[in-house]
Amino acid sequence: MENALNTVWVVLTAALVLFMEGGFSLLEAGLVRTKNAVNVTMKIFVDLTFGALAFYLVGAHLLFGGDKWHIVGFGRILGPGHLSPEAFILFQIGFAIAVVSIISGAVAERFRFSAYIVTVCLTCGLAYPISAHWIWGQGGWLAKLGMEDFAGSAAIHAMGGLMALMLAYLVGPRKHRFNRDGSVNVFAPSNVPLASCGAFILWFGWFGFNAGSTLSATNGELAPIALNTFLAAAAGGMSAILFSMYKFRVADPSMTINGSLCGLVAVTAGCAYIGPYAAMILGFFAGILVILATGWIDALHIDDPVGAVAVHGFGGVFGTLGVGLFDRSSGLITTGHIHLFAVQLLGVLVVVAWALVCATSIGWVLKKTVGIRVGSAEEDEGLDIVAHGIPAYNELERFSDGSPLSLSDDPGVELGKQETSTEF
Amino acid sequence: MENALNTVWVVLTAALVLFMEGGFSLLEAGLVRTKNAVNVTMKIFVDLTFGALAFYLVGAHLLFGGDKWHIVGFGRILGPGHLSPEAFILFQIGFAIAVVSIISGAVAERFRFSAYIVTVCLTCGLAYPISAHWIWGQGGWLAKLGMEDFAGSAAIHAMGGLMALMLAYLVGPRKHRFNRDGSVNVFAPSNVPLASCGAFILWFGWFGFNAGSTLSATNGELAPIALNTFLAAAAGGMSAILFSMYKFRVADPSMTINGSLCGLVAVTAGCAYIGPYAAMILGFFAGILVILATGWIDALHIDDPVGAVAVHGFGGVFGTLGVGLFDRSSGLITTGHIHLFAVQLLGVLVVVAWALVCATSIGWVLKKTVGIRVGSAEEDEGLDIVAHGIPAYNELERFSDGSPLSLSDDPGVELGKQETSTEF
Amino acid sequence: MENALNTVWVVLTAALVLFMEGGFSLLEAGLVRTKNAVNVTMKIFVDLTFGALAFYLVGAHLLFGGDKWHIVGFGRILGPGHLSPEAFILFQIGFAIAVVSIISGAVAERFRFSAYIVTVCLTCGLAYPISAHWIWGQGGWLAKLGMEDFAGSAAIHAMGGLMALMLAYLVGPRKHRFNRDGSVNVFAPSNVPLASCGAFILWFGWFGFNAGSTLSATNGELAPIALNTFLAAAAGGMSAILFSMYKFRVADPSMTINGSLCGLVAVTAGCAYIGPYAAMILGFFAGILVILATGWIDALHIDDPVGAVAVHGFGGVFGTLGVGLFDRSSGLITTGHIHLFAVQLLGVLVVVAWALVCATSIGWVLKKTVGIRVGSAEEDEGLDIVAHGIPAYNELERFSDGSPLSLSDDPGVELGKQETSTEF
Repeated sequence: MENALNTVWVVLTAALVLFMEGGFSLLEAGLVRTKNAVNVTMKIFVDLTFGALAFYLVGAHLLFGGDKWHIVGFGRILGPGHLSPEAFILFQIGFAIAVVSIISGAVAERFRFSAYIVTVCLTCGLAYPISAHWIWGQGGWLAKLGMEDFAGSAAIHAMGGLMALMLAYLVGPRKHRFNRDGSVNVFAPSNVPLASCGAFILWFGWFGFNAGSTLSATNGELAPIALNTFLAAAAGGMSAILFSMYKFRVADPSMTINGSLCGLVAVTAGCAYIGPYAAMILGFFAGILVILATGWIDALHIDDPVGAVAVHGFGGVFGTLGVGLFDRSSGLITTGHIHLFAVQLLGVLVVVAWALVCATSIGWVLKKTVGIRVGSAEEDEGLDIVAHGIPAYNELERFSDGSPLSLSDDPGVELGKQETSTEF
Repeated sequence: MENALNTVWVVLTAALVLFMEGGFSLLEAGLVRTKNAVNVTMKIFVDLTFGALAFYLVGAHLLFGGDKWHIVGFGRILGPGHLSPEAFILFQIGFAIAVVSIISGAVAERFRFSAYIVTVCLTCGLAYPISAHWIWGQGGWLAKLGMEDFAGSAAIHAMGGLMALMLAYLVGPRKHRFNRDGSVNVFAPSNVPLASCGAFILWFGWFGFNAGSTLSATNGELAPIALNTFLAAAAGGMSAILFSMYKFRVADPSMTINGSLCGLVAVTAGCAYIGPYAAMILGFFAGILVILATGWIDALHIDDPVGAVAVHGFGGVFGTLGVGLFDRSSGLITTGHIHLFAVQLLGVLVVVAWALVCATSIGWVLKKTVGIRVGSAEEDEGLDIVAHGIPAYNELERFSDGSPLSLSDDPGVELGKQETSTEF
Repeated sequence: MENALNTVWVVLTAALVLFMEGGFSLLEAGLVRTKNAVNVTMKIFVDLTFGALAFYLVGAHLLFGGDKWHIVGFGRILGPGHLSPEAFILFQIGFAIAVVSIISGAVAERFRFSAYIVTVCLTCGLAYPISAHWIWGQGGWLAKLGMEDFAGSAAIHAMGGLMALMLAYLVGPRKHRFNRDGSVNVFAPSNVPLASCGAFILWFGWFGFNAGSTLSATNGELAPIALNTFLAAAAGGMSAILFSMYKFRVADPSMTINGSLCGLVAVTAGCAYIGPYAAMILGFFAGILVILATGWIDALHIDDPVGAVAVHGFGGVFGTLGVGLFDRSSGLITTGHIHLFAVQLLGVLVVVAWALVCATSIGWVLKKTVGIRVGSAEEDEGLDIVAHGIPAYNELERFSDGSPLSLSDDPGVELGKQETSTEF
């Protein structure tokens, strides 16, 4: 019975985590320009297909297989005994593809589609599982040091966010994004309601992401985790609304969305270890951090169309350190002990370094093989037409080759068919 | 184990209830005019952030704290013993912010954003918790009289719907909505598929809203509640389709959506107390009621852009009375006893009066402070630009300051960056 | 307790299955032309209202009532004893309306709305329950033969897909779809991100569809089912991306969506009986099959605007046969025994024949009553205006009668009201 309850819990939360891919897709499709909305959506399908299979077939073994030298796993997957192994692996697939979905947004609008497929396979199959093994694998060296990263502020979000930073740097900014005089242009999001829909799905799915990471329904922290998760998101959204009203004189929708999400990212490492007030504090500062970080990234002339680096990279590092500050039994602020904070700092630096190394290596592989960036003319036209043959929105009536349909044209076979059907 | 199962149940249903905010957002963004679609979305973020925190920090104690004089609670929150307290409070947050989300739609397109933030804090922190304490708090006076409001047709929907009515009256109708000769203009919804998406999310979340209100997985009424909830929505949508085909000669999509939702609202009070046929009957009449009520509200020259008053206000009152008619053990129609019906009538009148008093008071506070309505020029321009600096949809390529992007412009920093990246 | 856990499981998965209707709606609204996007959405509301009630009041008894002659049920519904009967029936409602939702897409853009209501009532109330009784009813003749169709590749998807094929044939293709010289025009989907959102919801809901079909939380196959479901979808999406890149030189978004969905359909019959590698193999071929089948259906000059026949019809037949190939204990490939495969072949042929007979009969009824197809002028105008009085998208500001709103017009009653409200 307990095994059954655990399995039901993890299967349902795995479904929530996998549904977050829909959230990523809509968020990104809404934030990029119209001419690349299909392309970011298709990248999420690459995550859900190539990425999931690469992790299932290869990466999962590196992460959860038997430990070698505290740095990588091999062979049969070792899940918790109180849970169906299939539920465990399904849940973990959702985590692995979240990492690449973070990347997909930051490189949107100019990354080559084939290059993205390669990036996804290498990230889910190789890069992410190795560092995650250090933190979550049985025998991982950061786990042995006592690093706390409950649902992955470091292992998922900092990893994805920093890989995104490096790949966005390597692929270069979109045309017209930064002027030679150093000033910055911001492109208008194509569809704000769509982006909001994505944010709500992500928020919803995050209950699965964090509370499901108990991998057990009888874990007494389950409900506190869910509450902390929500409170951090609420506080992050609130501070982003207030700070954007102060800084930009308007309540900025992109920043509000990203403030909520950054609150969620920041509480992800500590949701099982901190109290509700700490969750609100972390969330509150995350909502401000995301706005500041967006400016810093712009100032580096690194182009992240959806703010994924600010949300996941900065939020992930901040959240990992936050556990060291607010852990109920060993946080620096809550107890005055510095040991946990030092471990968290080491751990997150290691993940950041690993993410930069992996992304640089992937960029090198792409350069040597399929190339990393679309051509200038293709970028002008938009990747929807170039890579997928179809624009995102077609409010006029037309054929899929783009030619307009005139109602006076010969209606074709249909009339004859309709006559047949009239005789029915 | 039973505690664990209850906690899992309530956390998952709380997530569903909180996901309903996404439903409210899309429904409203789809039903208002394009120029205010971002603004209604941002209001839902205010609900999820300011509203949730106001309820968590203040309102929850007034609702579920130790009872004083049968009218208000204080101090530590008293939840059911068979459930994690954090799960209980998370679920209740979802309920509190549903109340303000109802209001957000009715005052759309002309309410000042800062005024909305104040309204949300006062409603979630003060107005709603007090009347809900009467109905649901330990020792509340309406509860003691025997009022039945299982998941809140009165406490949530009539409360939100009647506050919405009064605030919509106080803020005045949108320009051009009612002509001086008494005739009515209806503005076209900006995005019907988006609104439908919102309706489907609300319908989905309502399973959590009603069945989750058991707060217990072993409650034998759990599945009957879920079935009643669905059947009422189905019957409400069906009667709205048929009645709109009869009345307007077309199957009206807004009315179909609102008919389903009104069926859901109407069954919310009684879902645990009535049988499936009663649920279908309630839903059926709710679907007709919502169309009639929309006309009545128009005739009063009160402007509710999304029909929130008709759905939640009228549906909520109707549903509260409906329990008095159809309760299996003491309904007027089912058993011939009038006592329960009289209690329900008293209860709902009290809630209606309280809602009108609260909304009037909030309107007075707003008048004395931030103001209630945007200026005429701002209303013409639309609140998306005025309050959030960005339109909902940007199908053309442009910078966020609105200036068009010409492809012949200097592409800026990117070229240099790309060259660097080519040398990689 | 076990009963409670089962009930919680089935109520939650039923909610997921019913949420799939939202997925169908968005998928279809995104794939059809703009002028018919409201219409397909409204059809999904017909499924959720008329269809659900027809099944609840009539069809469910034919399916799950006491068996007569191994071909139809009557009277009281016989659900599993370990589960609340209301949870069982709620789950089954979701299945029944999935059948008609499949049909709704294939006949989009030219089917009469009233005809669709009739089709839904007859399908959910009569056609589907009878053949499903053969497969799933206590005493059904195909069940007695040993046919395996765990969550309905045959009973739901082949049934819906083949009815869709015949009704799409009977209603005739859309104007301009097929040229007299035999060549084919493809209309551009109106909203690809919306369609993707629908696909993600469907994928999410499918966890409920397949794993919920255990009707029991303690079934040891629950988690393997969920994993198989996901893996088949991933493999189907992957092969569709690769095959469309090979065949069309672009990664086609419609085909990618339909590839994933076809993987889901194909694994639905066997998810409880096959291993994860078999699930990936089935999914992989399903993703290719759906692209080939789309071409075959076009070549027959049958017009299916959303590819429902390819996904559900072809995928359903393929998946039913797939169990005969890959069943762990009696599949043709896995064990060399042909008996199960032969039974599956017989079963699916029976379902296909029954679907064609039912659809033909419904077409005959429609011809004799409300008619099947809208007029040519109405088709040109689009069903949104004709049947629902409103276009899907209204980015300009206008009244719902279509007249544009000029800001210099008399603002009407509002000014007076605002003055009142200013004096507040």
